[in-house]
Amino acid sequence: MDNFEFHNPVKIIFGRRKVAEAGVHVSRVARTVLLCTGMGSVKKNGIFDTVVQGLDRNGVSWVELEGIQSNPLLSKVREGIEIVRREGLEAVMAVGGGSVMDTAKAVAAGSLMERGDIWDCFLGKEEIKDALPVVTVPTLAASGSEMNGFMVITNEKNMLKLAAGSPHVYPVISILDPELTYTVPANYTAYGGVDAICHLLEPFFNGSWPDTPIQDGITYGLVKAIIQSTDACLKSSQSYTARANLMWGATLALNGLTKAGVGQHFFPVHLIEHSLSALYHVPHGAGLSALLPGWMEWYADSGSRERIAEFGCGVYGLDKGGTDAELAVRTILIFSRWLKSIGCPWDLAHLSIPVSAHADIAENAMVQGAIWGIDQDYTKEVIVNILDRCARRDI
Amino acid sequence: MDNFEFHNPVKIIFGRRKVAEAGVHVSRVARTVLLCTGMGSVKKNGIFDTVVQGLDRNGVSWVELEGIQSNPLLSKVREGIEIVRREGLEAVMAVGGGSVMDTAKAVAAGSLMERGDIWDCFLGKEEIKDALPVVTVPTLAASGSEMNGFMVITNEKNMLKLAAGSPHVYPVISILDPELTYTVPANYTAYGGVDAICHLLEPFFNGSWPDTPIQDGITYGLVKAIIQSTDACLKSSQSYTARANLMWGATLALNGLTKAGVGQHFFPVHLIEHSLSALYHVPHGAGLSALLPGWMEWYADSGSRERIAEFGCGVYGLDKGGTDAELAVRTILIFSRWLKSIGCPWDLAHLSIPVSAHADIAENAMVQGAIWGIDQDYTKEVIVNILDRCARRDI
Repeated sequence: MDNFEFHNPVKIIFGRRKVAEAGVHVSRVARTVLLCTGMGSVKKNGIFDTVVQGLDRNGVSWVELEGIQSNPLLSKVREGIEIVRREGLEAVMAVGGGSVMDTAKAVAAGSLMERGDIWDCFLGKEEIKDALPVVTVPTLAASGSEMNGFMVITNEKNMLKLAAGSPHVYPVISILDPELTYTVPANYTAYGGVDAICHLLEPFFNGSWPDTPIQDGITYGLVKAIIQSTDACLKSSQSYTARANLMWGATLALNGLTKAGVGQHFFPVHLIEHSLSALYHVPHGAGLSALLPGWMEWYADSGSRERIAEFGCGVYGLDKGGTDAELAVRTILIFSRWLKSIGCPWDLAHLSIPVSAHADIAENAMVQGAIWGIDQDYTKEVIVNILDRCARRDI
Repeated sequence: MDNFEFHNPVKIIFGRRKVAEAGVHVSRVARTVLLCTGMGSVKKNGIFDTVVQGLDRNGVSWVELEGIQSNPLLSKVREGIEIVRREGLEAVMAVGGGSVMDTAKAVAAGSLMERGDIWDCFLGKEEIKDALPVVTVPTLAASGSEMNGFMVITNEKNMLKLAAGSPHVYPVISILDPELTYTVPANYTAYGGVDAICHLLEPFFNGSWPDTPIQDGITYGLVKAIIQSTDACLKSSQSYTARANLMWGATLALNGLTKAGVGQHFFPVHLIEHSLSALYHVPHGAGLSALLPGWMEWYADSGSRERIAEFGCGVYGLDKGGTDAELAVRTILIFSRWLKSIGCPWDLAHLSIPVSAHADIAENAMVQGAIWGIDQDYTKEVIVNILDRCARRDI
C-alpha cells in the first residue's frame, strides 16, 4: 500500500424525507445562502418548494442561481460569484445533480478570492485558499460530488472542461434523501450508475496493485451493489431500497475511500470523456459508458490483462481457471452487455460521434491532460487508438 | 437501508515512517500535551524516542502518563485528568494500542468537565459536551479507536468495563505507521485481527439485512483482507504490505462505515467479552475469539441461520447450493479452524474459564447491558446458554 492522507469531514444526513430537515441544518451554518438549482426539474417535482419552505421556516434567506445546465459553465459560476458578493451571502447550497453541486463549490471558492479568477484554479495557476460553506442536497446518484472536494466546470469560450479540487470545497453537510431520485428518468439513472462504477474502476486500474486487497475488496462490493441497485431502480423507479443503495453507493464510490493507498493514479476515461462532452455535449455518464469497453480492451492489451481478469473474478465471480486473456475478454463482454441491458451506449457509434472527430477529441484531451495530469502513456496517438477501439463494437 | 448520520472527521496520515512527522502535526494542534503510553514496549522499541524527539523539535512540551494497562483502568484516567488540569495541558496524545487511545480520549473529555465525574459519562448519567483535541499514534492494529469516537474503560472498584462515545473524542489526527507494529508479538497480532473482524461481524449480524448490499459487500472485502493480512503478518512479522493492510483494515472495521445504514444494532459479543476480561483479565481479542464460534452457533439457532450462511458465502465463497443449516455449520467450522490456525482460542476452555463462572459473567454482562444497551433477546439465561456453547468446542 502507498502512503496516503485521508480526511473527509463531510457530514452525511441520509434517509427518507431528510430533505424536510435541510432548513434546520443550513440554519446552523448560515443566515443567508445562494441556492443553486438546475434546469427546473426540482421545481416541477416539488423538491424546491420543500427546501425553500425549510429555509424560510428556519429564518434562512436565500437568493437563487437557477438554470445550471449539465456540463456546467464557467459563466454561470461567475454569475453566482457576483450574486454572492453583491448580496453578501454566507453560504452556497446546491439542490440538484453533479453539475449543480460542482457549480456551488466553484462559486463558494471563487467568492472568497481576493484577486485572480476562479478559472485560474482550474488551470492550476492559483490555489483555492478558502471557500464559503457548501451544503448539498443531491437529486441524482452519480457524481459523488456530495462527499468530495472536486468540481468540474466547462469554459465555453475555449471548450475546455476541467477539474479542480480543494479540501475547502468539501460540503459541510450533504443531505441524501433517496426519495428525491424517484423521478430521475431511466436513462439518467443508468448514466449515474455507470458514472459511479467508472469512479471505482479508474483508481482500481491505475493503482499499486497487488498490495491493495482492502481497496480492491471495497471496490468489488461497491461495484456489485451499484450494478444490482441500478438494475433494481430501472425495474422499479420508486423502490426505496434500490434508490437508497444506488445513492449511497455512488457517494462512497468517489469519497476518497477506494483511492486512499492505491498510489498515483489518474482518471483517463473521465479525461477523455470530458473532451467528448465539452465538444459534443453528451451526458457525462453516457460518454463514459461509450468509452469504457474500448478503453478496457486497450488497457488489457497495453496495461494489465491480469488486472482486468481480476476485476471480472472479483465482480462477476468468474472462475479463475481460465487464462487472463480469456478472462479479460469475458469480463469486458459481460460489462458491455450490462451497459446494453440498462440502455447505455457501449460504443461511440451509439452517440453518433464520427471517427473523423477522434483526432479533435484527443487533441482536447491532451490540453486537459497537460493541466490536470495524466499518465505519460497517454499520448495523442494512444488516445486516438482508444477512441478507435470505442468507435463501433459488436457485442 | 435505515436512515443514518455519518460524520467521521478524523484526519488519517498513513504510511511508512510517518511517525517521524508526528511532532509537526501535533504542533499545529497544541503547544503542550499529555503523552499517554502503555506498559513500556514503546520505550524498548524506540517509538517513544522518535515521538518525543519530534515533539521537542517542534516546540511541543509534554508530560507523560505512563503505565496504562490493557483493559485500562478508571483510576489511570483520573490520574491523567489531574495532570492535565494541574499543568494546563492543551491536548492529549496516545502512543500505544486501544487501551492507551481509549484512556487518552477519556482524559480529553474528563479534563473539560466542569462538574461531575468522567465515569458518569460511561454510566449514561452525563453527556460528554467537549474534549481536548486527541492525537493518536496506534502501535497495534485492532481496536479502530484511532478513527472513531468510542472508548472502553474498566472501573476497578466494581469490575465494570463500560463503553462511552461522543463526537467530541474523535481524534483530530491519527498517524498510522505500519512499521510501528513490526514488533507486536504473534499472539497480539492475531488477537488484533480477531478484534477487527468482530467489529465487522457484530453490525453484520444485527442489521437491517437484506437491504444492505453495500455494507455487506464492504464487510466481506474487509474481513477477507484482514484474514489474509493476519496470516501474512504471522508468516512474516516485518512484511510492510501485511502490516499495512491489517492496520488499515482494522481502522476501517470500526470507523462507522459498515455500521451506517444497517439500523439498530448492538455488540453482544463485545459486551460479554468485556465482562470476561473485566473479571478474568484475558486479552480482549482472545476473549472475543473464545466467544465467537459459540455465539455464532447460538445466533444460527436463535437468530438467522440464513445470515450466517450468507456470511460464509460472501467471505469464504461457499457454494450457495447447500441448505442454510449446512452452510452455517460449515461457516462456523471454517472460522473456528482459522482461529486455531492463528493460535487463538476457539472456546473458553482454552482460556481456563470454568463453567461455574458462567453465571457470574452473565450477571456482569446484564449490568453492562442495562447501561450500554443490548437487544432484549439477551436475558441472563440466554447469555449463560451462549457461554455454555462456548465452553468446550471440538473442531
